[in-house]
Amino acid sequence: MYRTSLKVTSEREGDIINISREVSTAIRKSGVKSGLVHLFVQHSTAALTTIEYEPGVLSDLRRALSVIAPDDADYAHNARWGDGNGRSHVKASIIGPSLTLPFSEDGLMCGTWQQVVLLELDVNAGRERTIICTVSGE
Amino acid sequence: MYRTSLKVTSEREGDIINISREVSTAIRKSGVKSGLVHLFVQHSTAALTTIEYEPGVLSDLRRALSVIAPDDADYAHNARWGDGNGRSHVKASIIGPSLTLPFSEDGLMCGTWQQVVLLELDVNAGRERTIICTVSGE
Amino acid sequence: MYRTSLKVTSEREGDIINISREVSTAIRKSGVKSGLVHLFVQHSTAALTTIEYEPGVLSDLRRALSVIAPDDADYAHNARWGDGNGRSHVKASIIGPSLTLPFSEDGLMCGTWQQVVLLELDVNAGRERTIICTVSGE
Repeated sequence: MYRTSLKVTSEREGDIINISREVSTAIRKSGVKSGLVHLFVQHSTAALTTIEYEPGVLSDLRRALSVIAPDDADYAHNARWGDGNGRSHVKASIIGPSLTLPFSEDGLMCGTWQQVVLLELDVNAGRERTIICTVSGE
Repeated sequence: MYRTSLKVTSEREGDIINISREVSTAIRKSGVKSGLVHLFVQHSTAALTTIEYEPGVLSDLRRALSVIAPDDADYAHNARWGDGNGRSHVKASIIGPSLTLPFSEDGLMCGTWQQVVLLELDVNAGRERTIICTVSGE
Repeated sequence: MYRTSLKVTSEREGDIINISREVSTAIRKSGVKSGLVHLFVQHSTAALTTIEYEPGVLSDLRRALSVIAPDDADYAHNARWGDGNGRSHVKASIIGPSLTLPFSEDGLMCGTWQQVVLLELDVNAGRERTIICTVSGE
């Protein structure tokens, strides 16, 4: 088992950051030839998934998440704490913090159009996000 | 590999139960010092995710899930089986039954505000839920 | 560690294909008695989850996903590429491509009504989908 952490810095709410290259680098550094890489984002207002990394799709995903958690809804979290990121927590819990991907000697076994991404969902963006990366296999 | 099952009992639909402590206990009992803990809820109307365990956010998440699967929609599942939990199945499939978390000698590597939770989504709550917990590592 | 790939062919958008049997077969072939099976769908317009495999619930899930990504919304992806599957990408990213399940000598440790499914979300369906299946344990 090999473990490292990846750091990415977002600029604003809704940023979708392609981390495929960083994940591939971690796999190579691990020395493991074939196995699974587990990713976990250590924050409650960010999430991990895969997507075709094309600006149109990225904006479509942002809009869809706003259907579930609209900007202008009343959030109990905001009323209590006044930090304005109720919608960020909700979206993050629905997408989830965890993602596991297979790899072989040829690298990540994703589809041609399938990139690994971090979703910055916080209204207070511009922060460094940490992803714990655990590689296991043979 | 170490395996155990966690049991939690819900009281009503929409309960969000913090299981971080139970998961941490399972990790300690496993004797594994660093690795991954995999959680799987063995039910089709419950789900697992992470969230800041704060009553405001929890109610915000409940409301967001009701946007996707409203209480008053017509469910084909209900029409067929009359058990009224069509919305519960839908929400559970979208959130998902499975969650993997990293841990080190210091315990679960979650963020400061990030708790592990079971979502009780069934309208027929008040039941015991089983989570299969598998610990692996070194 | 044992790895294989499962192939399933969908017929149309919205197909929800029960792959529990194929996953169980892969576990048996692996020779691993107790452990975890990781599934990853190598496509950006398909997803994996669990659900009660009952036609009513399956149609309820399709409808819920259409709330998040309606058929008649304007998708930036479609405007750019003209392939009409913006909604497919959005739904796939929200559900996710990855699923890990525990198994014992008695097979998959799912709940009684809990089946493993592939969601065909592409409007251009009728295609073969590949799921990378990785079995680990003892």
